[in-house]
Amino acid sequence: MKRFGIIGFGRFGQLAARHLRDHFSVVVTDTADVGEAAAAIGVKTGSLADAADCDVVMLAVPVQAMAATIAAIAPLVRPGALVLDVASVKMLPARWMLEALPESVDIVATHPLFGPQSARGGLEGQPLVVCAVRGERHHKVAEFGRSLGLSVSITTAEEHDREMAYVQALTHLIGRALVNIRIPDEELKTNSYQHLLELCGLIRDDSKELFFAIQNLNPYAEEITRQFIAEANGLLAESLKAGNRSAAD
Amino acid sequence: MKRFGIIGFGRFGQLAARHLRDHFSVVVTDTADVGEAAAAIGVKTGSLADAADCDVVMLAVPVQAMAATIAAIAPLVRPGALVLDVASVKMLPARWMLEALPESVDIVATHPLFGPQSARGGLEGQPLVVCAVRGERHHKVAEFGRSLGLSVSITTAEEHDREMAYVQALTHLIGRALVNIRIPDEELKTNSYQHLLELCGLIRDDSKELFFAIQNLNPYAEEITRQFIAEANGLLAESLKAGNRSAAD
Repeated sequence: MKRFGIIGFGRFGQLAARHLRDHFSVVVTDTADVGEAAAAIGVKTGSLADAADCDVVMLAVPVQAMAATIAAIAPLVRPGALVLDVASVKMLPARWMLEALPESVDIVATHPLFGPQSARGGLEGQPLVVCAVRGERHHKVAEFGRSLGLSVSITTAEEHDREMAYVQALTHLIGRALVNIRIPDEELKTNSYQHLLELCGLIRDDSKELFFAIQNLNPYAEEITRQFIAEANGLLAESLKAGNRSAAD
Repeated sequence: MKRFGIIGFGRFGQLAARHLRDHFSVVVTDTADVGEAAAAIGVKTGSLADAADCDVVMLAVPVQAMAATIAAIAPLVRPGALVLDVASVKMLPARWMLEALPESVDIVATHPLFGPQSARGGLEGQPLVVCAVRGERHHKVAEFGRSLGLSVSITTAEEHDREMAYVQALTHLIGRALVNIRIPDEELKTNSYQHLLELCGLIRDDSKELFFAIQNLNPYAEEITRQFIAEANGLLAESLKAGNRSAAD
């Protein structure tokens, strides 16, 4: 069995371990003590060097910690290994991996658009984005993802980030703003309002770290969120003007 | 059969006529020529005076035209008549009707939270809000609404407008802004983004008149929409600051 190192054993690392343990000899590592969680899932723990010295190495740390983690594993990875990440943005992690990891390893950037919550019923049909970074092994990653039942798309890191500026950054900005102003679950509600309430439900428990990563570390996000806010401001101003006009009639 | 006057024979007036023609002798009027639409539904057309001189008079004109319409019918309504409106905001129309209509008529303010699109499968379960304005006939209106299968809530105009500042004003502001910036139907999408796309679908065809009415003529709307925009702005600023911090690390 090939050895699979998971670096970062948080919510996603644990979900990955559960689905990989039957296919690989999994070694996990984290800056926190994750012995109990690893034992519960039935995978080994090891040092950063142990996890980095595997046939496949998955970076499952928060994006904010990724550049430092890549620098730390660069001298530890073995020639011929495959290194992949699972961050919610793709251009920056792809660049960091490409610049810091030795030429002797292949690199694939991935974004699983699911987590323990959405995949609690299984992986079937869950979306996985795969981007080639160095070498040709993105085909192998896609094939393995499909064998797990995932719905795999192969695209570029740039195209991924362009789409996610809408799909994630804008959605999380609106959802988080609605959660923060505490929109009430009114008795009289329309289907339209129900969509806002359900968006709040999906976003409420996400971490601030994820929110900042989605907003800041996607180079296209700021433009799209600014465009939305400017449009909302413009509509408010236009409607106040229309109100003054009709009051003057 | 009691006579029922419908003033304003647009999308909602026509929907109402279709459901009232079996229970009342319906007379409709409009500033535009609506003879064909009335004939298709099988109701009579008449002058403003004909429609205003009925046992029940429904104001189904745009909110922007309502104060002028109320002033025009005030000398035409018969003592003992019931006058009701169907606007999306309730405090202003209730006040306009109360101030301008003679003491001899009863007044009920209503908001049907549905239209030809949402009620194309029938009225069953569609929400109707009923507010007492003058007299006790809101109970009769509620009872009649229930007999049509509507889900009727009796509340005050103020409570209605407070709730609708969220349910309508905020929802339409977000939906209209998303429609205007043309958010794309991406191939890679999450459930959260799907909610935004469906919100756009529900709001896309609404008129600017309705949008302005919901935003301007509800006295609570501006505060809530400003609060949302300020929160979105604050989140964007906070995330840019977090980005600069992590770039400086």
